[in-house]
Amino acid sequence: MKGLFITLEGPDGSGKTTQVSKVADYLAQHHIDFIQTREPGGTRISDKIRGLILDPEHQEMHDLTEVLLYAASRAQHVHEKIIPNLEQGKVVLCDRFVDASLAYQGFGLGVGEERVLQVNNIATSGLVPDRSYFIDVSPQVGRSRMKARYGDGNLDRIEQKDFTYHDRVREGFQHIFSNNTERIIRINGEQDPDTVFLEIAKDLEVLLANHKEK
Amino acid sequence: MKGLFITLEGPDGSGKTTQVSKVADYLAQHHIDFIQTREPGGTRISDKIRGLILDPEHQEMHDLTEVLLYAASRAQHVHEKIIPNLEQGKVVLCDRFVDASLAYQGFGLGVGEERVLQVNNIATSGLVPDRSYFIDVSPQVGRSRMKARYGDGNLDRIEQKDFTYHDRVREGFQHIFSNNTERIIRINGEQDPDTVFLEIAKDLEVLLANHKEK
Repeated sequence: MKGLFITLEGPDGSGKTTQVSKVADYLAQHHIDFIQTREPGGTRISDKIRGLILDPEHQEMHDLTEVLLYAASRAQHVHEKIIPNLEQGKVVLCDRFVDASLAYQGFGLGVGEERVLQVNNIATSGLVPDRSYFIDVSPQVGRSRMKARYGDGNLDRIEQKDFTYHDRVREGFQHIFSNNTERIIRINGEQDPDTVFLEIAKDLEVLLANHKEK
Repeated sequence: MKGLFITLEGPDGSGKTTQVSKVADYLAQHHIDFIQTREPGGTRISDKIRGLILDPEHQEMHDLTEVLLYAASRAQHVHEKIIPNLEQGKVVLCDRFVDASLAYQGFGLGVGEERVLQVNNIATSGLVPDRSYFIDVSPQVGRSRMKARYGDGNLDRIEQKDFTYHDRVREGFQHIFSNNTERIIRINGEQDPDTVFLEIAKDLEVLLANHKEK
């Protein structure tokens, strides 16, 4: 695998998607051959699976069904898109990956880290990112940013998830980070977006230089 | 779990679905409280997932995506329908279950027994049938019955699967049987349907009597 696989992770309201755009701009400015993608989704079949998961009619969906559908969507994304692009030597920049499933489903829903990890190891055939940036914000800051973005109406829906849910998700991200400090760079997402990006760029520069040398 | 979980397994053309109907008739005649269901499918969400898997447009579907989608469909079926009915003390009669995934995906597609088993153990939360009847026929007999049923046109589609595929599926079923002789009863499906059912009924009678005593 000659390419470089980079993911961005973080809770809702962390500013993660803004940072993905900034990283994409940086790669383009430096004339690096890359693709930008995201989960859930990324391919035609993955998008259809995503539609099933997010359909508001499917209130009766079991947590394990959700875990397996996310993993099915990911298996298609990894094998149809991510791996072929890495094999062509490209940088693959992905908004969310397995860490998000571990945090949201393993910890948030309470399915457990081990089961989510087992299913995802099979889905990805063991593919692990070369680098992951974890944009960390407190649940309070994440919530107030989501509120500013979507207004009060939708916040109710988000807040209907019991109050400890977002705490569990953050705890999950921090647990995953502390077990993968070689791969994951934690960045304080409560700083302004340009400062957050400067921290990413500092690491990214070294990462790309080392990769070029190989 | 007070109920009794019974599955019927076998390759295409084994006459398995005919036997499911005969078992259902038997249970009804003996005034046993039961439900009849099948895989893939069995619930609204499971049926939608089944539609995704079988959509002829999805030629690019990866084998691992297929394994995970079947498991997602099964997770919903198990937790929404099978377990609640077993908890009510009913007999649950199911046309195909995990053994079929092991034979078709693990052996037929070549994904491997271990990965298919791991994913399905998580999907089912470890639920295993109390009794499985494996209706065994040679690939030649299975093929000629499918040919008689669907005509030459559709047989071409089935036979497009490389010639050793059906042999691998049967080998898979036999391997699973030899590892689970306590649970699985193998029946020679090349006999006439009434003789096949007599063999099932002989075991079923003892099974139901033992279950009643508990």
